Amino acid sequence: MTRLMNNKAVSRLFMAAFLSVFGLWVSACTATTAQTHPNLVINHQDVVAMKKAIKKEGRFKSTFIAQKTSVDTQIKQAITVPVPKDGGGGYTHERHKKNYKLMYNAGVIYQLTGDQKYANYVRDMLFAYAELYPTLPLHPKRKLGKKNPGKLFWQSLNEAVWLVYTSQAYDLVLPSLNASEKAKIETGLLRPIVKFLSVDSPKTFNKVHNHGTWTTAAVGMTGYVLGELDWVEQALYGLDKSGTGGFLRQLDELFSPQGYYNEGPYYQRYALMPFVTFAKAIQANQPERKIFEYRNGIVLKAINTTIQLSYNKLFFPINDSIKSKGTDTIELVNGVTIAYGLTKNTGLLSIAKSQDQILLTGDGLKVADALDNKQETPYHFESVAFGDGNDGKQGALVIMRQNVGGDQAVLFKPASQGLGHGHFDKLTWQFYDKGEEIVSDYGAARFLNVEAKSGGGYLPENNSWAKQTIAHNTVVVDEKSHFNGKVKTGNENHPELIFYGENKTSNGNVVKVASAKINTAYKDVKLKRTLALIELPKISQSLVVDVFDVVSDNKHQLDLPIHYKGHLIDTNFDLGTKTQSISALGDKNGYQHLWLKAQAQPKSGLAKVTWLNDNGRFYTQSSIVDGNAEVLFTQLGANDPNFNLRNENAFIYRVNDIKQHSFVSVFEPHGEYNPSKEFTKDASSKLSQLTHHKVKGVDLVTFSFGGTVDYVLAFNSKNSESLSINFSYNGKSFEFTGHFKLFEINKS
Amino acid sequence: MTRLMNNKAVSRLFMAAFLSVFGLWVSACTATTAQTHPNLVINHQDVVAMKKAIKKEGRFKSTFIAQKTSVDTQIKQAITVPVPKDGGGGYTHERHKKNYKLMYNAGVIYQLTGDQKYANYVRDMLFAYAELYPTLPLHPKRKLGKKNPGKLFWQSLNEAVWLVYTSQAYDLVLPSLNASEKAKIETGLLRPIVKFLSVDSPKTFNKVHNHGTWTTAAVGMTGYVLGELDWVEQALYGLDKSGTGGFLRQLDELFSPQGYYNEGPYYQRYALMPFVTFAKAIQANQPERKIFEYRNGIVLKAINTTIQLSYNKLFFPINDSIKSKGTDTIELVNGVTIAYGLTKNTGLLSIAKSQDQILLTGDGLKVADALDNKQETPYHFESVAFGDGNDGKQGALVIMRQNVGGDQAVLFKPASQGLGHGHFDKLTWQFYDKGEEIVSDYGAARFLNVEAKSGGGYLPENNSWAKQTIAHNTVVVDEKSHFNGKVKTGNENHPELIFYGENKTSNGNVVKVASAKINTAYKDVKLKRTLALIELPKISQSLVVDVFDVVSDNKHQLDLPIHYKGHLIDTNFDLGTKTQSISALGDKNGYQHLWLKAQAQPKSGLAKVTWLNDNGRFYTQSSIVDGNAEVLFTQLGANDPNFNLRNENAFIYRVNDIKQHSFVSVFEPHGEYNPSKEFTKDASSKLSQLTHHKVKGVDLVTFSFGGTVDYVLAFNSKNSESLSINFSYNGKSFEFTGHFKLFEINKS
Repeated sequence: MTRLMNNKAVSRLFMAAFLSVFGLWVSACTATTAQTHPNLVINHQDVVAMKKAIKKEGRFKSTFIAQKTSVDTQIKQAITVPVPKDGGGGYTHERHKKNYKLMYNAGVIYQLTGDQKYANYVRDMLFAYAELYPTLPLHPKRKLGKKNPGKLFWQSLNEAVWLVYTSQAYDLVLPSLNASEKAKIETGLLRPIVKFLSVDSPKTFNKVHNHGTWTTAAVGMTGYVLGELDWVEQALYGLDKSGTGGFLRQLDELFSPQGYYNEGPYYQRYALMPFVTFAKAIQANQPERKIFEYRNGIVLKAINTTIQLSYNKLFFPINDSIKSKGTDTIELVNGVTIAYGLTKNTGLLSIAKSQDQILLTGDGLKVADALDNKQETPYHFESVAFGDGNDGKQGALVIMRQNVGGDQAVLFKPASQGLGHGHFDKLTWQFYDKGEEIVSDYGAARFLNVEAKSGGGYLPENNSWAKQTIAHNTVVVDEKSHFNGKVKTGNENHPELIFYGENKTSNGNVVKVASAKINTAYKDVKLKRTLALIELPKISQSLVVDVFDVVSDNKHQLDLPIHYKGHLIDTNFDLGTKTQSISALGDKNGYQHLWLKAQAQPKSGLAKVTWLNDNGRFYTQSSIVDGNAEVLFTQLGANDPNFNLRNENAFIYRVNDIKQHSFVSVFEPHGEYNPSKEFTKDASSKLSQLTHHKVKGVDLVTFSFGGTVDYVLAFNSKNSESLSINFSYNGKSFEFTGHFKLFEINKS
Repeated sequence: MTRLMNNKAVSRLFMAAFLSVFGLWVSACTATTAQTHPNLVINHQDVVAMKKAIKKEGRFKSTFIAQKTSVDTQIKQAITVPVPKDGGGGYTHERHKKNYKLMYNAGVIYQLTGDQKYANYVRDMLFAYAELYPTLPLHPKRKLGKKNPGKLFWQSLNEAVWLVYTSQAYDLVLPSLNASEKAKIETGLLRPIVKFLSVDSPKTFNKVHNHGTWTTAAVGMTGYVLGELDWVEQALYGLDKSGTGGFLRQLDELFSPQGYYNEGPYYQRYALMPFVTFAKAIQANQPERKIFEYRNGIVLKAINTTIQLSYNKLFFPINDSIKSKGTDTIELVNGVTIAYGLTKNTGLLSIAKSQDQILLTGDGLKVADALDNKQETPYHFESVAFGDGNDGKQGALVIMRQNVGGDQAVLFKPASQGLGHGHFDKLTWQFYDKGEEIVSDYGAARFLNVEAKSGGGYLPENNSWAKQTIAHNTVVVDEKSHFNGKVKTGNENHPELIFYGENKTSNGNVVKVASAKINTAYKDVKLKRTLALIELPKISQSLVVDVFDVVSDNKHQLDLPIHYKGHLIDTNFDLGTKTQSISALGDKNGYQHLWLKAQAQPKSGLAKVTWLNDNGRFYTQSSIVDGNAEVLFTQLGANDPNFNLRNENAFIYRVNDIKQHSFVSVFEPHGEYNPSKEFTKDASSKLSQLTHHKVKGVDLVTFSFGGTVDYVLAFNSKNSESLSINFSYNGKSFEFTGHFKLFEINKS
């Protein structure tokens, strides 16, 4: 049956109809439903093992003690279930959030200690809710015009989250309740709230979107606890059980086949929670659904991909991302814990170890025991092109990594827009080295929950700066953002990954190359970028080659920024610094936020900009310039009346009045600055030569680091893979098969 | 005899004359000189123990293996002793530096392995030097007009450093040499270089200055190795043995009685090396001199004070300091190792552990063994006023610390100028919390050894910005720096510490207060500042009270900057941000480097500025303002054509056209920003009230955090300690004895 479920909605419709006619469906499911409680994320066998575990020293016991102490303190205070009044962040909002966490935690402590007082506390709070809930109208602070009001909270999303926790709390204390207590809670609270979230809110319930996931998870999990398997059916297949909505459809649509979530890692992390939690509950109650095998194991892939989308424990900060979010967030603690419980993959343990948080669940116990026994092995971070979109073909997010005495990573983003939290940053890139961000992305302009900063929400500068194209490391045409800054247009168009591959030459050189294009970011301009991450072990050199082709029938101004982290050390051209006063670079599309600090026009040849990062390394970006290109040095902070923006630095290559242009550069980490040990080495770029030619549609980038060898990176970024390519260099003939090859050519 | 040496130079002159007449002096010393080698920093007994230690697993063995591997690689290459040609950083300069380190390390490995090849390598390199040295004229790159040329190096300082290492290397391989080999090395190299550094360079040799210390150490140590105790006498008492120069005079003059070095921690660390090394060699050869007891143990005090002058492993960055220098620098590794060897103070081990560097010496072995056995105990960082100057009475550097769930430190600097590397920053302060700098000092404007940045030396902006008063957190009068920026005037005048003390009230509140003044920073202006670091455990609040009095007979403009680290979060007044263009705030004395980003004029009352540091805490500075004061928000970076400056932020309280003014403020750490765990708490200042009155010469600062208690900090910063002070507050009478007291007064 699971296998059939992999098919498309249309066949599901048929299936559902077919099966309900024959009554097979429901009975098949009912037959295997557990009659014991708890049985959602935590089941009865888990409890038996956990009760044993809290008697021996180790991570699990110490977590239990800490949690119990916290719960003990909280349940001493009176139960407070206020009439809903405040919006997000306000008192009643925060109180109801605290309540569900407290009920869940008290429920867990009840199971582990058997002490009736914890169950009674949960029961009494549920009674209070059961009395309140039936009296509630829609929330007074609901957003007018929006279709998703709650009752306890201003939006139904929070109500669903509340129920995901509360259904588990109820499940945990169920064995302690008598029939009339159960009836009171179920009739007064659980059935009404399920009704409100499902049949009374069909639009949200059926939505193939993160909000829908929380809602279906809440309803489905409550269904398991109350034995209402019809609710589970609705949760899985939509209100009409047709499969056009519901949890499985969400698993089909919201992730790419590799488990990449369209909005990017920051929201992927957030979205993970209800997927993983509900899946775990399905597995406990209906193992025959093989939910973790669904769509070739999409839930586990989504967890793994979330980890892969991090560098040095922080998520790659594309789109609306708060940059300090990383792999230790609670959503991924949940994900890693459940994934380890299922797979026993010891690589996950090293992630769990760095998370340093143990969950009081059966899987949490497995993680704790394994870590106590030091079973962790290194987690393998991979180079991979994550196809975007539900079919994996709507662009891609490419991560290229190498370890050259420290982890390096290139992020390349020919991904699709990613809905409302997406940025207009097609084909942007970032670079990471020795634990730090070097070529950077601003992330979101937001101080989470800091009241003085726009109430803790997204700042106005998130739209006016962070989302704009100039805030990213990609080409801006005529100072306008991609898709003219329209989300709708962005969602309708996506870049195309031409190829991604990697290759190790007989000389030991390792090359990873990705190439992508988009013709719809601007009406009349085609953008194509090829990025190569290269390791040359013989000369202990790593580098990135960047070729960005811009083609139009009309003349345009083209800007290519590099947002860099560190202190500018040197340029091989006169900076043209403005010393007495500086002004905003432009008046819209993000340009109004940039102070123009210096305006240079390097001579024809190779323009070099070197900076020093806090990690003690130097970085040089060397670009081919024709003598007309300008380099603008900017600092963020203009038109920022409330000092909302971080004052970050960039330099922008600008060419003007041009129909076609290729920005060609080499990016080169080098040397070390160690003032503590009083040495500095290789503070200067070693790149001695860089050229770019196109020969019969093949790009040839030649470069040298001053030794006896010239390197030629040849690549073919035509859409179709060509079998064999010939070219000549310095009078000699060369040949390669496939999309790219790096040649070493001894200088004669 | 040691005891007599503590007296002043005049009595020493007499003593030296007296003793040499009777021939007692030299014979007394000779009698105890060791006849075995090695016997400088490493002695024969050390070697016996170390040879045993390299056979068992542990820190010492692994250090030995690493060092041996490094030496093995290096001695495979041909010995290179080039004719001196290049200045600092150039090839021959760096080569001769490498050579002395290599000879020293090879000498150590010889002693530990007994393998003759290491001794032969050192011998052969010494032969090469012995052939070269007699042929050398003064160095071709010597600085003309300077009195300190070298022969191997451009300045004799490097030559002395070379000899400090080389004398030890020679000492280590001596047992392997025959008479003619010794004669060749001593006649060709050691005697000529000693002659050159001593009798041929009397000015540097006799100088009471860091350069003199290296020189006397080099000559004295070579004297011990060659049995030339007359050289030792000269090293200790100056060329004429009168005591007006020499190592002991340096110990008398360059440190305060508590072991504070006049130039500040950055140079204290640097100066430490020859003091500690030579002292250790004296101790080995003439223990009867009790050098480590000299001047009440000044050498050990200097080592300990260097550690005390750090926060979170980095030195307080006053004066010309490179901010990444800290307790793990090699000079302090030496100091801590030798100090531990002498004292067995297990607190030093926790410093040694964080240094993570083991020396291959007898003391290094003691440290390694103790760390292997986990004997370290926490090192106690103290609150202390370090008197400045050789008598400890030329101002002071005050460090106030407290631990309130994380270490906090206030640095207050009524210290003297500190010679050429001193900054014009009288009465400045800094604040540290939870590992980070919060109210900051720029340190030196320098990228050490980065050729592209002014050859790696001090940048022009070190003078034009870093040394200027506006670059510090202290009052600037009429946009001019203290002492009009003249080092000579600065050296001739110093602030005065009025008092420093600490006190714990019966309520558990802990108060540390320091008060200081200077009347010579400006011709007609008196500056007095009182800073109090306060902990109020009952309300979990820490704070700093700052009262800065400025008094003149004439009207002036007064600026008081706060250089802050973090992101501006909020002000309780309109910022007046300049959005389209910004200009330099002034044209000289550092003002030319400040962009004026916003110009505010808060209403009369309490002006608040809140920022958020990377450590996730909020900080609010609340100042009493009269409605006329301006607050200027600045960013560093104007008139900086080469992007040499870090773009740091400050706000400046400015009052104008005024004869007398007291800047009164409370600085308040609060709350937490934790985007990873998605919570923010106490992002707003809780300070609800702040007043300042002077009653009969007593300052009364009242403040409240909105609870039921008013706090009154009363202090008497008149120069003389008063016995008993009365004052009344809200109609009630209060009394205290001494300089200050914090009162809790319940609101009625």
